[in-house]
Amino acid sequence: MQNFEFNNPTHIIFGKDTIGRIGESVAAQGVKKLLFIAGGGSIKTNGVYEQASKSLEKEGIEVLEAWGIQPNPILSKVRELVKIAKAQKVDGVLAVGGGSVIDTAVAAAIYVDDAWELFEQRFTNTPALPVFTILTLSAAGSEFDAGAVITNEEEKKKWFFMNPNVAPKVSIIDPSVQAKLPWYQTVNGAVDAMSHIMETYFTAGDNEVTLALCESLLRTLISSTDRLQKNEDDYAARGSLAWAAALALSGVCHVGQTGADSTPHALEHGISAFYPEVSHGAGLAVVNPGWIEYCAHANPDHFARWAANVWECDSVENAVAVFRSRLKQWGHPVTLKELGVEKERLGAISENALAFKLPALVKEMKVEDMELILKAAYQ
Amino acid sequence: MQNFEFNNPTHIIFGKDTIGRIGESVAAQGVKKLLFIAGGGSIKTNGVYEQASKSLEKEGIEVLEAWGIQPNPILSKVRELVKIAKAQKVDGVLAVGGGSVIDTAVAAAIYVDDAWELFEQRFTNTPALPVFTILTLSAAGSEFDAGAVITNEEEKKKWFFMNPNVAPKVSIIDPSVQAKLPWYQTVNGAVDAMSHIMETYFTAGDNEVTLALCESLLRTLISSTDRLQKNEDDYAARGSLAWAAALALSGVCHVGQTGADSTPHALEHGISAFYPEVSHGAGLAVVNPGWIEYCAHANPDHFARWAANVWECDSVENAVAVFRSRLKQWGHPVTLKELGVEKERLGAISENALAFKLPALVKEMKVEDMELILKAAYQ
Repeated sequence: MQNFEFNNPTHIIFGKDTIGRIGESVAAQGVKKLLFIAGGGSIKTNGVYEQASKSLEKEGIEVLEAWGIQPNPILSKVRELVKIAKAQKVDGVLAVGGGSVIDTAVAAAIYVDDAWELFEQRFTNTPALPVFTILTLSAAGSEFDAGAVITNEEEKKKWFFMNPNVAPKVSIIDPSVQAKLPWYQTVNGAVDAMSHIMETYFTAGDNEVTLALCESLLRTLISSTDRLQKNEDDYAARGSLAWAAALALSGVCHVGQTGADSTPHALEHGISAFYPEVSHGAGLAVVNPGWIEYCAHANPDHFARWAANVWECDSVENAVAVFRSRLKQWGHPVTLKELGVEKERLGAISENALAFKLPALVKEMKVEDMELILKAAYQ
Repeated sequence: MQNFEFNNPTHIIFGKDTIGRIGESVAAQGVKKLLFIAGGGSIKTNGVYEQASKSLEKEGIEVLEAWGIQPNPILSKVRELVKIAKAQKVDGVLAVGGGSVIDTAVAAAIYVDDAWELFEQRFTNTPALPVFTILTLSAAGSEFDAGAVITNEEEKKKWFFMNPNVAPKVSIIDPSVQAKLPWYQTVNGAVDAMSHIMETYFTAGDNEVTLALCESLLRTLISSTDRLQKNEDDYAARGSLAWAAALALSGVCHVGQTGADSTPHALEHGISAFYPEVSHGAGLAVVNPGWIEYCAHANPDHFARWAANVWECDSVENAVAVFRSRLKQWGHPVTLKELGVEKERLGAISENALAFKLPALVKEMKVEDMELILKAAYQ
């Protein structure tokens, strides 16, 4: 078993009617002037904005609002927010939204003019403003980790950095605000979380706790998504999906493993660097089964364990087929063609994904390997 | 699903050759004079004491040693340590040992003259000296929670308190130092951890993540103990047992459940208040199967799920039989008679256990219920 460290200081407040606790949470950290970062305005129709604003006002916290964060968040927006944060001398950052909003807020909290340097370094320890989050879409796990993924639009790179100082001080997760999400967003979230778990699970360490825990989270994500497809108001299923997605990147799925092999995420980042309209979950749904098929022979026993314990299948081949058919049943695209990706771009996407500088933990990947996975996933 | 909060700030350093990191960990918290609390001296023969002392010396930390903490730790010892800590003006506490040493250190870290008040209040938020631990026996989960269990010898009460300020700043878990433990201590530890998990699992909330995670931890504890019985040097099994025991009380097994019903622990505390020579794990091994049998009809579906998912049995009756036979196979006593408990004391033990003031979450317990469980477990 690999040695490891576990230290996740984020205070999670989870459940119905918890958004009103944001004011006391921010005040408890001594923050007086808050940069409130959000997306396209849906939080104004579902009550989240009102609850958060009232709670912050009650504590006398000055709030500066910044709207318009889009999916696949971009570097220019981070730079813009850093400028505002510096000019206005805010002393804390609140993200209200999903992973894109949180990641933008986290990158802005680092409070440096050229944030891209952090992505070049990947692992940093620079100081940061305190980060708070109110989650409105369970998917990326950003509410319970200490990093961010941002796209550098000019260089067409979608990269991540990690920094313990950006771990949110408090994250509020009220699953009930996700009850009226468009269905495809719920599925995208579940697939994103599944991908996070599988990327560490397949590195196949011998920490039985971590392996069994990953399998139980994968099964829960699958069963919760099935239940939500039948009834979007199934609160226990919504809550289970939300908590599983948060735990996926909290560290408990990684400890004692050899690390994480982010090939599926790198491939998806390659795709959405060229096709920003492709959602993260949709890209992952297409590349994941193909990646598993391509890598299974590298560690047959471990992949067979996954097939048995997650899908109750007697072979990886059958498990991948069941996985694909479940994605279809959930209404997900399963080919690159369906996503609108052009065949002549597969080479460039592969090179872009490889530039992500992956640790080769499950199977070493050259450009040719990446391209073979993409070609097999084309139609 | 119940609302919940999750906030476990303890920094875990886990793995081989990690004990030498205690010095830097203590120094990083600004501690200059440390009360070093330990048990009977086994750490002087297995290398733990030497590694820890060298590491603390290297950082220039002044160390005051206090030895002699026994299993089922007692209030008079806590009072003695508080006096020393105050007189010597220490600014941090290090526990080197198992749950008894850690719990004593935690209670002493509160730094008040009459520590029993805290146990009367049960949930407190008083300030405390920073606590550090080096774990030498995986069982109680004290390395990753924020409370302590201490016996008041005069009043024959074995009670607990919780306080977020006593959560260890850093806990070092090197499973390799447990390789040469006497076998019964390994089993006691596994049973203690299983009991912690079942006491929350049977409260039967509808957080599917927590339920599935509890089941996977129980299966891992069972399989790791089986492996260690065959080969005490199986490091991956030793590590998996250690990490499962730590997670059992970390909060992840409790979130979204209705709480924890500590009936088995209360019964065991009742037993060891009269028979301090009975080890915690042995007492738990005797009362747990009986408690499960007695409560199963209160929620048949949930107990049937436990039987199926933990023991692969088609009924609770069969699962309890398999549980008992596994305890025997591990060399554990399974009756109170084997523990040396006198039949005429069962009433007094029941009353003592009830004084623990349990929340009745699985099944309400009166003195008569407690006594019926004990009588059934007698021989």
